[in-house]
Amino acid sequence: MTIEVDYSFPPGVDAQKQGQIIAVGQTAGTWGANFGHREKFFKSHLGEVIKGVTNPDGGSVVTVAFPEANVEGDIPTLLTMIFGKYSMAGAAKVLAVRLPENYGLRPKFGIKGIRKILGIDDRPPLMGIFKPALGLSTEDYATILREVANAGLDIIKDDEIMGNLDEAPTLKRLDACRQVLEEIQEKTGRTVLYATNVTSKVGKCSHPLDVAKLLVREGANALLVNVLSYGFSLLESLAADPEINVPIFAHPALAGAICAAPNYGIAYPVVLGTLMAHAGADAVLYPASYGSLGFDPIEEATIRDILRSRNVFPVPSAGIKPSIVSQVLKDYGQDVILNAGTGIMDYPDGRAAGVKAFFKALGLE
Amino acid sequence: MTIEVDYSFPPGVDAQKQGQIIAVGQTAGTWGANFGHREKFFKSHLGEVIKGVTNPDGGSVVTVAFPEANVEGDIPTLLTMIFGKYSMAGAAKVLAVRLPENYGLRPKFGIKGIRKILGIDDRPPLMGIFKPALGLSTEDYATILREVANAGLDIIKDDEIMGNLDEAPTLKRLDACRQVLEEIQEKTGRTVLYATNVTSKVGKCSHPLDVAKLLVREGANALLVNVLSYGFSLLESLAADPEINVPIFAHPALAGAICAAPNYGIAYPVVLGTLMAHAGADAVLYPASYGSLGFDPIEEATIRDILRSRNVFPVPSAGIKPSIVSQVLKDYGQDVILNAGTGIMDYPDGRAAGVKAFFKALGLE
Repeated sequence: MTIEVDYSFPPGVDAQKQGQIIAVGQTAGTWGANFGHREKFFKSHLGEVIKGVTNPDGGSVVTVAFPEANVEGDIPTLLTMIFGKYSMAGAAKVLAVRLPENYGLRPKFGIKGIRKILGIDDRPPLMGIFKPALGLSTEDYATILREVANAGLDIIKDDEIMGNLDEAPTLKRLDACRQVLEEIQEKTGRTVLYATNVTSKVGKCSHPLDVAKLLVREGANALLVNVLSYGFSLLESLAADPEINVPIFAHPALAGAICAAPNYGIAYPVVLGTLMAHAGADAVLYPASYGSLGFDPIEEATIRDILRSRNVFPVPSAGIKPSIVSQVLKDYGQDVILNAGTGIMDYPDGRAAGVKAFFKALGLE
Repeated sequence: MTIEVDYSFPPGVDAQKQGQIIAVGQTAGTWGANFGHREKFFKSHLGEVIKGVTNPDGGSVVTVAFPEANVEGDIPTLLTMIFGKYSMAGAAKVLAVRLPENYGLRPKFGIKGIRKILGIDDRPPLMGIFKPALGLSTEDYATILREVANAGLDIIKDDEIMGNLDEAPTLKRLDACRQVLEEIQEKTGRTVLYATNVTSKVGKCSHPLDVAKLLVREGANALLVNVLSYGFSLLESLAADPEINVPIFAHPALAGAICAAPNYGIAYPVVLGTLMAHAGADAVLYPASYGSLGFDPIEEATIRDILRSRNVFPVPSAGIKPSIVSQVLKDYGQDVILNAGTGIMDYPDGRAAGVKAFFKALGLE
């Protein structure tokens, strides 16, 4: 099997030549006659330029096919191969990566599993975010959660910046929130998920993988992971670990540092779609085109479709408000999680009213 | 203590306004009157714009000071805070990050420790890279190593793309190379370091941290880590782990995806200098300005100085050949590791002659 990668180049670059440089330089590299006896091995590792297209603007795209045998079926060796050294060689952007279907991991839960936990099969689950991001106490978070969960919210998550802070230490925050979730479960039978942020230094742990296991042992029923800040190897380790028997929500923090430049880096649909979906995320947050970030609707749709194709829950975020829910449903269909930050937490009539406004907009008042 | 970050913006952007958005949006975020009783906490987490400069070209740089209390003293929470969501908000580049001196980790070995292991205090150590990168057998690598190590090479490293391949599995490669290193040690008393590439799937391990520990148990006396492909949390975990009692060489693979764009991402000196130096790397590879990658000499010098300021060994790479050694010494001074790939492996008269040519150029024939 091969791994196909599309690289785009700005006008003025000899894309065929660059494709050749990538196909050889990112695989076996230099080769001398003194290793002629290993030619078979050598050739089995070489990449190959299989397509080249010049766009009307003079820019171009070449496709390089890499042998799957060069990598370990994970995201880090893949990244090193397709763009490791070459990322430093001038203007070039990875536009798309096509992996064999069995490459990497699949979600343990994904769309079907998260729906099953929540007991929701006919509408998008509704997710909220604790706000303000910093500065509240453990009790404040529990109070907020009680309010929105009683109003019907399905999932709450930490803000991505929330670490293990003095005034709301992660384990105390989790404990306080878990008690609220247990109250709701007892009272209504509903399971509400709380995606607790996985960081490095919680309790006696100093490694995020150990922290994640500790959180699950302490009752976390979902995890939030800033995959790009910590690295894809953390997501893969969590996804492969049987102790992590709760859904993993991948956050896109830092994605713009890799994806936002027009002629450099790796495109959003690769990083937030393909790589996340093959690294075992259960749900992936990404900027909704409705939001203030001005995200491209085509890139957004591509991310969504890549995620769904592997049963990963798409979570368009930013700008999701009750007033646009009907448009959202038209654009996205049912298999998304509606993630509202200020849309719930800063709702004029209060947070519970914000949750209810979403259900009203969903026709479920 | 605060963390100061310089953000640059292209002409036409209201940098002061963006600085404010960062100072609030990347810290406490929105804040409502209903949490007035937490105002003290809230204010203690807010960032502050402390400087703004407009350049002659119309571009601008603002400096935001963040409270150290918002993060966990590690690189991932730092990245999420300074550029997590904001990286997706439009053209902006992180130019510099100034951390408190005690922030994060320090190398276990660094310049002094690596010099002590090698027994070299009066010249730059010489490092080679196994080439071709893929396609050789275990025996081929041992043969190459015997040749260059006998000729006086101080350090050899795997190519960054080298994973756990069928024809040269990591553990067998390590075993064969370790035997060569033991021969040299016995014969000459010299310690030669072999930086073995840490990947995810070696032996029965499926996590790079476990792989690294396994490699050390199996006799690896140095490690190579593709920090950006795996994530800073891997480097930090290795650096903090007492079982990893060998120097860690950080490779810059993928750095261009984050650093190369003019108006997006994070500058090279931050990623390959500041972040690596505070994440515990012992030595950091980065592109030499002499090389084919056309690296900026000013950025290169900044990386080198940042690394040295924390006792991290700078390893300028690419384009290092015997013919430029005198220039290299003039530009860099003695406290660098000279890392030569093709400069040794493709030397016209053979690899051993390549090593000797370097020593001749160093005046140590």
